[in-house]
Amino acid sequence: MKIDIGDFDIDGILAGYRVETGKGFKLKKHKPADTAGLDIPKAEATELLAMGVERLSTQQDMLYAQDRWSVLCIFQAMDAAGKDGTIKHVFSGLNPQGCHVAAFKQPSSTELDHDFLWRHISQLPGRGQIGIHNRSWYEEVLVARVHPEILAHQKLPPRLVTKRIWDERLEDIASYERFLARQGVVVLKFFLNVSQEEQKKRFLSRLDEPEKNWKFSAADVAERQHWDAYMEAYEQAIAGTATPEAPWYVVPADRKWFTRLVVVAAITRALARLDLHYPKVTDEQRAALAEARVKLG
Amino acid sequence: MKIDIGDFDIDGILAGYRVETGKGFKLKKHKPADTAGLDIPKAEATELLAMGVERLSTQQDMLYAQDRWSVLCIFQAMDAAGKDGTIKHVFSGLNPQGCHVAAFKQPSSTELDHDFLWRHISQLPGRGQIGIHNRSWYEEVLVARVHPEILAHQKLPPRLVTKRIWDERLEDIASYERFLARQGVVVLKFFLNVSQEEQKKRFLSRLDEPEKNWKFSAADVAERQHWDAYMEAYEQAIAGTATPEAPWYVVPADRKWFTRLVVVAAITRALARLDLHYPKVTDEQRAALAEARVKLG
Repeated sequence: MKIDIGDFDIDGILAGYRVETGKGFKLKKHKPADTAGLDIPKAEATELLAMGVERLSTQQDMLYAQDRWSVLCIFQAMDAAGKDGTIKHVFSGLNPQGCHVAAFKQPSSTELDHDFLWRHISQLPGRGQIGIHNRSWYEEVLVARVHPEILAHQKLPPRLVTKRIWDERLEDIASYERFLARQGVVVLKFFLNVSQEEQKKRFLSRLDEPEKNWKFSAADVAERQHWDAYMEAYEQAIAGTATPEAPWYVVPADRKWFTRLVVVAAITRALARLDLHYPKVTDEQRAALAEARVKLG
Repeated sequence: MKIDIGDFDIDGILAGYRVETGKGFKLKKHKPADTAGLDIPKAEATELLAMGVERLSTQQDMLYAQDRWSVLCIFQAMDAAGKDGTIKHVFSGLNPQGCHVAAFKQPSSTELDHDFLWRHISQLPGRGQIGIHNRSWYEEVLVARVHPEILAHQKLPPRLVTKRIWDERLEDIASYERFLARQGVVVLKFFLNVSQEEQKKRFLSRLDEPEKNWKFSAADVAERQHWDAYMEAYEQAIAGTATPEAPWYVVPADRKWFTRLVVVAAITRALARLDLHYPKVTDEQRAALAEARVKLG
């Protein structure tokens, strides 16, 4: 096959999914089955993804050598929206020395003894690194908002739990992400937007296909009754924290091949806007290199 | 001796040192040799301090049992202002199980690979704990501001180092402290305000008294030439981050006995405003206690 990446208006497509301000944000306007009008064969999608991963891999090498910027990719989604698969397919080509995935499950008792950012902060990528957070501090304004018993479990002093708590948490998250951006962390947030119908299909395939059985959880099915509450919480979360320095990408997630292409494109485009380069060699260093060559004979 | 703590207008005295807004804050208005008109014998000051420490110790026990609030005491000062002595005398009566001092020196290379809050956040007290930070994230707007080479060493992407960097850092610190307060962390910040003359006297005693020789550092003396720049940086830092939820205390530090009394009073008064109490025993727990008593014979 011959694919020319120049045939695609990548920036135009990404612009349709990137959210940089909460003003007027409505989740309903974003269609989970959208593919930006692309209707390409599977093999072609695979090839495009490989090109994206290769580009990302080259950028990662420079990011690591330059040792100034770091990248934080946050993934949030309903169950079966494809977080794990996207992480697997987009980041598998990278050097693991500069890439770290942190998956956040229920907090431990030590973690509950601290503020809600604390355990996530401990897993932030260092300079030169790409950090991938599979779930994140956003769970604190999503699952904790939908299930009041989770908030009750957090041992907050009662007088601090007011009606304003969700707005305060969104404000705190946005302020902290602004701080990270100022410190050289490129913050990219992905909401994989799957439809309730597609989720049902994927759950059924976990029941029907033996090699997918391990992924099935009855608890996930039970969460479907809270679908509307989750969508409301996601809308508020995205609207409250979308900024130019820490944008959200609302990625259509009913077609896995398209989800992955959007994610890799968003990351490579963001990295392209940095001044990535290998460290420049000074005259002094060049002399030292020449000397080393002599010594090696 | 008979001292009645009621004889002192503690809240009135503290109000003179507490800074809750940057509006109109001028460091010069705060006199290092001030003792709020108190002129008490040394033995009486010692007794008052012991009473304060005992009160703090009782509060700590409840704080630990209740396991909801935590307390962060930040100490900043010029050299020889008495940070170490104050920490020693104010906190020595506490149960070390619920009390942790973190002293911050030059950052390691791993720490430099992260944002400037990161290493301090890792040392934050958990619920029920008192954390004492001997130096803090404020060094990032003090020593880093006075010595540009420190900023240059921080590996920030060049495009992020602008004229606005100090204002941004102050804004980021204030936002983060607001977040901590909302999470149940009582943030108390102490600037031990020593005069340049008193510092000189204390340096000389480090040279003259053999048992103090180990404290002497020629580098500390060299820093004296930057005194005015430091005072300017402190004024900006306090003005930029003083809030009702994370107040500064500008504590006169030319008289050690007075410094310590102000610090212990500020902490005990702040804790008194919390709803500290031992966890209430439920009827169910009471029944279990009775049953345990029977089993013990």
